[in-house]
Amino acid sequence: MKEQDLFPLLEGYNNISIFTHVRPDGDAIGSSLAWAKALIMLGKNVEIYCPDVIPERYSFLPGYERFQDQFLPHKKEKLLAFVLDCSDLARLEYMESQMSQVEKIVNIDHHITNECFGDHNLVKTSAAATAEIIFQLIQENNLELDQEISLSLYAAISSDTGSFRYKNTTPQTMRIAALLLENGVNPYLVSEKLFDELSLNKLLLLREALYTLKVDEKHQVAWMSMKESTVRKYNASPAELEGFVNYAKNIKNMDIGVFFYHGNDGETKVGLRSKNSDVARMASYFGGGGHPLAAGCTVKGRAGQVEKKILKIIREAL
Amino acid sequence: MKEQDLFPLLEGYNNISIFTHVRPDGDAIGSSLAWAKALIMLGKNVEIYCPDVIPERYSFLPGYERFQDQFLPHKKEKLLAFVLDCSDLARLEYMESQMSQVEKIVNIDHHITNECFGDHNLVKTSAAATAEIIFQLIQENNLELDQEISLSLYAAISSDTGSFRYKNTTPQTMRIAALLLENGVNPYLVSEKLFDELSLNKLLLLREALYTLKVDEKHQVAWMSMKESTVRKYNASPAELEGFVNYAKNIKNMDIGVFFYHGNDGETKVGLRSKNSDVARMASYFGGGGHPLAAGCTVKGRAGQVEKKILKIIREAL
Repeated sequence: MKEQDLFPLLEGYNNISIFTHVRPDGDAIGSSLAWAKALIMLGKNVEIYCPDVIPERYSFLPGYERFQDQFLPHKKEKLLAFVLDCSDLARLEYMESQMSQVEKIVNIDHHITNECFGDHNLVKTSAAATAEIIFQLIQENNLELDQEISLSLYAAISSDTGSFRYKNTTPQTMRIAALLLENGVNPYLVSEKLFDELSLNKLLLLREALYTLKVDEKHQVAWMSMKESTVRKYNASPAELEGFVNYAKNIKNMDIGVFFYHGNDGETKVGLRSKNSDVARMASYFGGGGHPLAAGCTVKGRAGQVEKKILKIIREAL
Repeated sequence: MKEQDLFPLLEGYNNISIFTHVRPDGDAIGSSLAWAKALIMLGKNVEIYCPDVIPERYSFLPGYERFQDQFLPHKKEKLLAFVLDCSDLARLEYMESQMSQVEKIVNIDHHITNECFGDHNLVKTSAAATAEIIFQLIQENNLELDQEISLSLYAAISSDTGSFRYKNTTPQTMRIAALLLENGVNPYLVSEKLFDELSLNKLLLLREALYTLKVDEKHQVAWMSMKESTVRKYNASPAELEGFVNYAKNIKNMDIGVFFYHGNDGETKVGLRSKNSDVARMASYFGGGGHPLAAGCTVKGRAGQVEKKILKIIREAL
């Protein structure tokens, strides 16, 4: 599908639903809100669905409250669905089975693993974020790009590029960001909401994690661990541990960072990050996987034993 | 001075010195290196001076080793000096007195407090970084913008905007960044060097600091402290404590973060950060100052007493 093919398609539908993936990130949320607003301004009835509740940190995005986590299609409705930022329909979890009620699916995504599951597919792997593709759709069809849409798109792009820090950041990303800022987006507000805000629990858990920090200078690996019981002691969620593994990886002269989360069920979730080494290969020894520089696996056994096993594989692989 | 006036000025000089400020940041260093390279490519003899040693984290910037911290001008030399990113000549510390040996000073800066101390002044307060002005100088004079210069300018801009997160980030900043990326800059490499890398000492000190974390939910203030003896225990430098105050400020529902550094000399250095309140005013009660959202002061007295005094003023001011 090309951007210009959008209008003939839209003409046949008054009711449009937008779907995005489980555990939604800034790109999933921002792209969906931006695209919803653009379609509403075209006079469409638009619903937005996500199988998960949207984290409260995104509540600064206009339209945030419009997300629904229950998709109950009317059988006789002629429905067009846009599925955003999903490499496959399984990313919609329990909503996947209900997608058969939808007449046509338009798949808009930037993941290289996208399965082109839609009746129409607009997949651009060069885009840093799905929001870049939404931006182009809006621009090439001369739709209105108001301040609300600009804010949602900017937040989405900033989120998926780690504020223009990751490898996916391109000159085009920067040019789009320039236009969005011109529309009145405040970059400071966005980054404060997306990157700076910390929960007190997260800081207290970081303190606990740092007490377990160990480094092996010779093999350039650093690791930290946390027991599920510690997380419970703070009435916190394991989601608060996100990013802790990077503290280990980011230490100067270290190549690999590891974070062990020892569950009460006798399973350890292992997060692996690296500056230069292929940790996906290491994770694959234990049935895990991921990207070369960011991978993970789940291993059964006693906490201490699991840590030893993983560190042994890492030291041998280097 | 206008950008176009540069060439007639340069024609009269073969020897050019570039100066930047004490405690140099990414903009000071990157702007100086970029401008030096541009002038070298014009066939000039260029020296770069900074009253401080350049932190090793910037060693990835091409030309890093060319910085000198001793300025010894030959009396008979006809010297043109560019002073970059300095609001006044006092920012050159002990080099200030030697500036009288220089025939002409060109002052290039973006600080609103700039004193226009130069024989020529190119001060643009709308620029996010001095590097933006250097970029324009290069572009408007059709100088070559090679990959090395692009990397130095990108690092400078990224540094002064916190990777395009601060309020000073403008559409123009983004457009310049787009052009620099097109010249082959790797944004990931820059951000890894500027923002991600942590020393092991810094993490260990963060752990110590987090153990002192206290929050006053009612007054939305959080604080941490550190004794000089703790820093010495790790053979670390107090510079490693940079940014710790933000962990306190960034806690959700907190407005003010405070960091107390209790020196062995009976003085406490107090760092204050806020999301919304004027902490410069609070610091001014103790003879300190700064920006509304980022200020500091130094207070004599017993550690516990100083903390009480500061927190009292904060609670009363809110």
